[in-house]
Amino acid sequence: MNEILPSWREGKAKSAITDFVARVSSSDSPDFVAPPERIAVFDNDGTLWSEQPFYFQGLFVFDRVRQLLDQNRHWQTTQPFKAVLEGDWQTLGELGMKGLLELVMATHAGMLSSEFEQLVKEWLATARHPSFARPYTEIVFQPMLELLAYLRANGFKTFIVSAGGIEFVRVFSESVYGIPPEQVIGSSVLTKYEIRDGQPILSRLPQMNFLNDKYGKPVAINQQIGRRPIAAFGNSDGDIEMLEWTMSGAGSRLGMIVHHDDSAREFAYDRHSASGRLDRALERAPQRGFTVVSMRNDWERVFGFGP
Amino acid sequence: MNEILPSWREGKAKSAITDFVARVSSSDSPDFVAPPERIAVFDNDGTLWSEQPFYFQGLFVFDRVRQLLDQNRHWQTTQPFKAVLEGDWQTLGELGMKGLLELVMATHAGMLSSEFEQLVKEWLATARHPSFARPYTEIVFQPMLELLAYLRANGFKTFIVSAGGIEFVRVFSESVYGIPPEQVIGSSVLTKYEIRDGQPILSRLPQMNFLNDKYGKPVAINQQIGRRPIAAFGNSDGDIEMLEWTMSGAGSRLGMIVHHDDSAREFAYDRHSASGRLDRALERAPQRGFTVVSMRNDWERVFGFGP
Repeated sequence: MNEILPSWREGKAKSAITDFVARVSSSDSPDFVAPPERIAVFDNDGTLWSEQPFYFQGLFVFDRVRQLLDQNRHWQTTQPFKAVLEGDWQTLGELGMKGLLELVMATHAGMLSSEFEQLVKEWLATARHPSFARPYTEIVFQPMLELLAYLRANGFKTFIVSAGGIEFVRVFSESVYGIPPEQVIGSSVLTKYEIRDGQPILSRLPQMNFLNDKYGKPVAINQQIGRRPIAAFGNSDGDIEMLEWTMSGAGSRLGMIVHHDDSAREFAYDRHSASGRLDRALERAPQRGFTVVSMRNDWERVFGFGP
Repeated sequence: MNEILPSWREGKAKSAITDFVARVSSSDSPDFVAPPERIAVFDNDGTLWSEQPFYFQGLFVFDRVRQLLDQNRHWQTTQPFKAVLEGDWQTLGELGMKGLLELVMATHAGMLSSEFEQLVKEWLATARHPSFARPYTEIVFQPMLELLAYLRANGFKTFIVSAGGIEFVRVFSESVYGIPPEQVIGSSVLTKYEIRDGQPILSRLPQMNFLNDKYGKPVAINQQIGRRPIAAFGNSDGDIEMLEWTMSGAGSRLGMIVHHDDSAREFAYDRHSASGRLDRALERAPQRGFTVVSMRNDWERVFGFGP
């Protein structure tokens, strides 16, 4: 049994996972769930990969602001661009995911979906995390990769349900998490189909389509999956509604919150953070039956590299 | 080889399918496509099941209008309800999918998603097609069921991309077509998440969210699948953009139009029809490389029952 979830230490969190999987996947269990209904949803930022010093998509956008400065000199005196250029983390911290997506629209709209994809690819290939000095696609949580694989080995279909941009996350979800684009749900800008120079194209408009956060998450799950998940994993107050929706269905359910309490190996933050604030969800966890995962205590390893 | 697509007669249409599948799935073929990218999209009304005398979801809505008449006596003098109550097919034929979805909102909004699902289930179990006198879920095209199974056996992932309501199609897509709800794309009303009496619920609002027709189809494919399909199947002008988007990608592609030209076994209609009008798509077929399937000539059987 030591082969299962090797980066998870024995304890309540690991048992909650393995007990749940046994209950829903044993055909003689009263809580058996048929494979097509074994839907598990995962937040991305702070749940599958890190989100400090800021949401990684934010860092991507900030790099883009600096690149486009020559054509946009007025940004030096206009917020929130000024804050990006000055590294004013206090102001940036108050942007939230919505403000951040507005910055995405200012810097990444008016281009083809395929052009945006190319920009993300190039950034992921070249940018390095400021403290880990590695590509962002390596700053992913090894225990969560094992959890994804474990669930899939037990007949689950795994989905990402992120407040991040859907076209951003899809660029790396398959190679990093084994999650194909059609199993990624995220925020989006409006997209337009047209024929340009005889070729059909999809272009990104500078207008929000859907903000996939908080109350938006169950709505988007219903829209894109059409089935209530039986397991949900998050790390912040933006995930409360997704966890509530998941946990309030009939039968056996699993809802987990990854608590960033490991300043030595990753970061320690919850109530006072520029990204991934965890406050109400932590308070409600006992009453709602959410299992809190302590990164410090429950994880033997945090990343595929290092300790 | 007679086992493959037994309800398809030998000919150009069947060869187009089997040649295409061989080209993209043989690992030594120059047109080989990795399995995760073998995405095939299917229109529903008129492509997978019949759509005469009218879109089946329309018939569902019309039944609902009659059921709710006692509480809405003013419908007797208000269009389009009046046309429904009087069986005025001329007026109903001009509704189009958009007008029809407005009727859906008038009759099926303000309820929980789960309540809507229950209504659809009951209707499908009890209603009978006016000329075939069978449940609507039997008025599906046997050759298309075989095609879905054949593509899946060759590593394809099959999606429905319908102008019909997403929550309507999902009720029967898995049992009838083997397509799970997360692989159904459709039109939708706005949905709201809230806590009512301590329970999280999703309720349907009387407001359009997305009309999945014509230019909307490639947009929704990009939103929900995030990958360009390599095969697309439709039967009307509402499918042109989906076929164009599919066919204009690199490598081997298959785009097919089911032509309803079999008045003996099903229906014969194209340019002048209240539902599923086929005009521009038929004109453009040769230039765009769409293969036209003649139901009369290319199909040995049309339905699972009868000849």
